[in-house]
This record gives sequence, C-alpha cells and structure tokens, in this order.
Amino acid sequence: GSPECSLDTIVENKIKGILNGLEYNPSATTKQLVCTSITNSGKLSSCPAGMSVTGCACGYACGSWDVRQEKTCHCQCSVVDWTTARCCRLA
Amino acid sequence: GSPECSLDTIVENKIKGILNGLEYNPSATTKQLVCTSITNSGKLSSCPAGMSVTGCACGYACGSWDVRQEKTCHCQCSVVDWTTARCCRLA
Amino acid sequence: GSPECSLDTIVENKIKGILNGLEYNPSATTKQLVCTSITNSGKLSSCPAGMSVTGCACGYACGSWDVRQEKTCHCQCSVVDWTTARCCRLA
Repeated sequence: GSPECSLDTIVENKIKGILNGLEYNPSATTKQLVCTSITNSGKLSSCPAGMSVTGCACGYACGSWDVRQEKTCHCQCSVVDWTTARCCRLA
Repeated sequence: GSPECSLDTIVENKIKGILNGLEYNPSATTKQLVCTSITNSGKLSSCPAGMSVTGCACGYACGSWDVRQEKTCHCQCSVVDWTTARCCRLA
Repeated sequence: GSPECSLDTIVENKIKGILNGLEYNPSATTKQLVCTSITNSGKLSSCPAGMSVTGCACGYACGSWDVRQEKTCHCQCSVVDWTTARCCRLA
C-alpha cells in the first residue's frame, strides 16, 4: 500500500499516540529537585516523609550537626535554641 | 504463520524500535544530581535559576542560616563576611 | 470487527503490555533522592564516587566550609576536629 497506510505507519502512529497519552515523552518524565526548610525550637528538626536531609542549620551560630535516622537534624552545640533541616525530594 | 512473522512479533519489534529511537530505555532517562557552590561577600548568596539550595555556609564560623524565597542563603550572625549557597539540580 | 478485536485495540493492548514489561510505566521510572553522611577526623571529608556534596558540618561549632573538587568538604576554622560531608544521589 502507500507509505501512509502501511501497517508500519499505522502501528508507529498508534504507538506514538499511546506514548504521548501516557506521558512517556522525555520532557514529561523530567523531574526537578524541590527543597524546603523545616525549623523547630531545640536541637532537633525532622524532614517530612518522602524527603531527604541535605543539610542542617543551628541557632547560636553553631555549625556542628549530624543526621539521625536519615531524616532528623541534630545540632550538637551545648546551647542551641533552634534547628533547621533542609529537606529535598524529586517532584 | 511462523512465530517470527506473527503480528505479535512484528508489532513487538516495531514498538521496541520506536522506544529505542525515542530514547525511552531506562538508561537514557537516568539523571544525576549536579551541585555547585555560589559564594558572595556579605550575608546573602543565591542559586542560579533552575537550581535548589541544599545548604549554606557562612564566614566567621557562623552556622546559623536560613533560605529566603527558596533560592537565597542568608547568614544570620551579626558579623559575616561571606555567604555560600550550595546549589543542586538534576541533569 | 467488534471494538474489542479491532487492530487498534490489539495493537494498543500489545503496546501497553510491552511498556509494562519493560517497566516504562511512570511509577517504575520514579527515582528518589538518597543521602548519607561521611564523617572523618580533621578538616576534610569526601563523598563516595557517584554522590554529590549537598552540605557540610564541622566540629567545634564551625559553620565555615567550602567544597573542593565537587566531592570534598573542607572546614575552614583554625581548630576543627571532625568534618562531615552530606552526600546525595538519585537511586
């Protein structure tokens, strides 16, 4: 048959149509990094479920911190009045 | 017909060919996390468009910071001579 | 033929089956941000290959750091007994 009506062409168009409908095109699967800050009084602050700790900030100029159980920032200085967890996820 | 010439096989091969051509294979969609540091004098430093702040660093040993408008690191200590924003994106 | 047996329907089901088999469905390609901390004594700590530095923490309350060669945290204060690199990747 003519190129436009060949089984090849029909199937190819069908496939592309379904892929577009299912948003399988590359631009649709592009994800972005989305981050937010969670601040609490005291020495601990946790990221919400589904987010990862990428860094922490502490009151009283303190730069010594660790991450507990992969989701909680812990500021280590003896006097710290607030703790911020910087939390990111793909979206 | 023979298995090699069945409609099933023809369509399946056609689909795989198109998927490969459109780079729908998993390895082609794999992204990486790319990060860079932006340092400015003073108490503020911003990530470029398309990047997210994952953490901040401050001069004078200061570990107290916050993120403003999702793209700017603000160091809070009274004396801070430089501010670094750690910025990441998917690429 | 009836809608259930049209070439359209047959091809469409075939395509969806293959996509599912190849795990091209959106949920299968979803990646997550995975982070971990690497702590060393001294003023330097590096992320493993394939991971990016998203932030650093330093002993002695120090909040002044920079990232060297895109994978190593360097704490800048004159006295620092440990350095932590916060390292993330997509997985």
